[in-house]
Amino acid sequence: MRTQVAIIGAGPAGLLLSHLLAQGGVSSVVLETRSEEYVAARIRAGILEHSSVELLASVGLGSRLRAEGDEHRGIYLQWPGERHHLDFVDLAGRSVWVYGQTEVQKDLIAARRADDQEIHYEVSDVSLHDLADSPYVTYTDKDGQSQRLDAAFVAGCDGSFGPSRASIPSPKVHEKVYPYSWFGILADVAPSTDELIYAWHPDGFALHSMRSATVSRLYLQVPNGTDPQSWSDDRIWDELATRLGHGQNGWKLNPGPITDKSVLPMRSYVQTPMRHGNLFLAGDAAHIVPPTGAKGLNLAIADVALLSKALIAQVKEKNPTLADAYSDDAQRRVWRCTHFSWWMTTMLHTSGDPFDAELQLSQLRWVAGSRAGATGLAENYAGLPLGY
Amino acid sequence: MRTQVAIIGAGPAGLLLSHLLAQGGVSSVVLETRSEEYVAARIRAGILEHSSVELLASVGLGSRLRAEGDEHRGIYLQWPGERHHLDFVDLAGRSVWVYGQTEVQKDLIAARRADDQEIHYEVSDVSLHDLADSPYVTYTDKDGQSQRLDAAFVAGCDGSFGPSRASIPSPKVHEKVYPYSWFGILADVAPSTDELIYAWHPDGFALHSMRSATVSRLYLQVPNGTDPQSWSDDRIWDELATRLGHGQNGWKLNPGPITDKSVLPMRSYVQTPMRHGNLFLAGDAAHIVPPTGAKGLNLAIADVALLSKALIAQVKEKNPTLADAYSDDAQRRVWRCTHFSWWMTTMLHTSGDPFDAELQLSQLRWVAGSRAGATGLAENYAGLPLGY
Repeated sequence: MRTQVAIIGAGPAGLLLSHLLAQGGVSSVVLETRSEEYVAARIRAGILEHSSVELLASVGLGSRLRAEGDEHRGIYLQWPGERHHLDFVDLAGRSVWVYGQTEVQKDLIAARRADDQEIHYEVSDVSLHDLADSPYVTYTDKDGQSQRLDAAFVAGCDGSFGPSRASIPSPKVHEKVYPYSWFGILADVAPSTDELIYAWHPDGFALHSMRSATVSRLYLQVPNGTDPQSWSDDRIWDELATRLGHGQNGWKLNPGPITDKSVLPMRSYVQTPMRHGNLFLAGDAAHIVPPTGAKGLNLAIADVALLSKALIAQVKEKNPTLADAYSDDAQRRVWRCTHFSWWMTTMLHTSGDPFDAELQLSQLRWVAGSRAGATGLAENYAGLPLGY
Repeated sequence: MRTQVAIIGAGPAGLLLSHLLAQGGVSSVVLETRSEEYVAARIRAGILEHSSVELLASVGLGSRLRAEGDEHRGIYLQWPGERHHLDFVDLAGRSVWVYGQTEVQKDLIAARRADDQEIHYEVSDVSLHDLADSPYVTYTDKDGQSQRLDAAFVAGCDGSFGPSRASIPSPKVHEKVYPYSWFGILADVAPSTDELIYAWHPDGFALHSMRSATVSRLYLQVPNGTDPQSWSDDRIWDELATRLGHGQNGWKLNPGPITDKSVLPMRSYVQTPMRHGNLFLAGDAAHIVPPTGAKGLNLAIADVALLSKALIAQVKEKNPTLADAYSDDAQRRVWRCTHFSWWMTTMLHTSGDPFDAELQLSQLRWVAGSRAGATGLAENYAGLPLGY
């Protein structure tokens, strides 16, 4: 089997890449270890920044997003006694959209199916070969047959546990593990807020997010290693009510049936370079951010926007300029988002140190009270233009 | 001896307080353990923020400052290969002035002398008594005589080693010691720059500041415990040249005779409350910031601006409102400046961790490249309005 680009991973990065390549006249084959149903149901990010929405809309992936997604002008930032709305549209000229990664994934699967994209799910033993010269990928297909896929280029969109990342020799790795995790729940209850609430509280950070008009997504900062089953539903709602300020200025948190509980560790991870020979990494394969800045999915989309242009120029025009620049170009935004995610995380999560708490509160007051401070958060959260 | 306000400490905070009180018709006596010559010669801060300049000018202390000081529109922020000018006037509508603390001190001494202010230098054994009820201060004067000064109020302007701070029972103390120091030099050479250069460098932070058209002040980040005498002049200039980018884009660092070498540890310290009974703390007695944000002297001036109004209202109108609010009002600005000083410090000083270095560089690029980022630095550095 031969194609122009072998794409490892059928998550949003891999499928969007195959979509953008196809629009540029470049063929690809996608390999995925999980089943289509598993990939489609995976609960991940829920916020699309402005340039992600623009990109998706510009390639025919915006109609359901615009119809069923929810445009947010900004977020609420709060600490005990005070809640402030940051209006990103007013501050930075850009909004964000609440539209789950599951929905983006469904749209991508539908679009790729309509385009007869070749995607092989449930493959195993994926291995990358001869990346410097004539790349090929070997794998075992879902029927147990050994296969070989030859390609001019390989795109590693297979996340932090896939084989692509490990195929880059002697990478430079930057990693930071945070001393806390997010306890996330999904609940069948209408959100108690029109936009996300980011809450600093002495007991720890809390976030009120949402998936739809009838499904709420909420998070609590908890110690690493917390067992989600050790918390009763009542305890979860009580803690959310306390940290989110139930009863303050008449605001109420409406509890409801919890349908999912999970604990998510928080880390920052950046691997460089994002290229080795004819292998290119995009998304989680090259970098992980803590979720506080809502950057993970958006950064994957930004990577793919760059990478698709680079590969199209290579394949169609034999022009290596963009491909040669890809790793450095992508890294600039990666570090911007890594810094922003670290900044949001360390501003909002309590460390137990009273000095840190006072610094955090002073910073939050400044961010909410200064137009420059609020704009700094807004322009990063709503997202810098593609190509930053 | 009896006065309305006993002021402990004849540094800028104490003398400016006596000056502002006198203008409001409130008498004071100032006690100082050092000699007038020592206090006047002490080398400290050199940057006055906009509101400090306005306050000094509004009370007759601005003429020499305006004539001999040097107004700066902003600073340079740099890292290897790039130097960016941040124009505070353009960004935040405010400039800063380079005018040494020694000069402010001379102006204050001259003004207080012209006003026949009672100042007792070289006192010892200063002790504060009966602060809750009928305060008095006992001390030994320079001739060895025991003295007692009765006052309605005591103002502790005696820095972090004076007796006032220790007279507040069970204070809440926040402290952070940084893992590096500043090696500062004074040199008899014209500054190689028109405005201050804040330089991030893999070998450590460097700062090119100045005292006058013929005197340069420069700093290097060094490990704690560095002996300033262990560095030769050549080594100091070589290291400054490397970190400040001598030779880049034609810029040159001009070396010259070094007249002073000292190593300054860096810490953040905040003590609350700033009031106990009839004792009020101002300036370094209540808080220390690392010098990176140029906030120490300015914060002392802001404290004294608040405290003078509070004491005048108390003495002249028996109105305790401002005095009761003083500690909380002052703390708000104290934490803003403590946060800003910590932010500047941790953005510019290398920790040895490559992840931190990448975060710092991404932040520096964003601060220099985003109007919101640059304005955030500018409005804090040039100083928030008094009363923030």
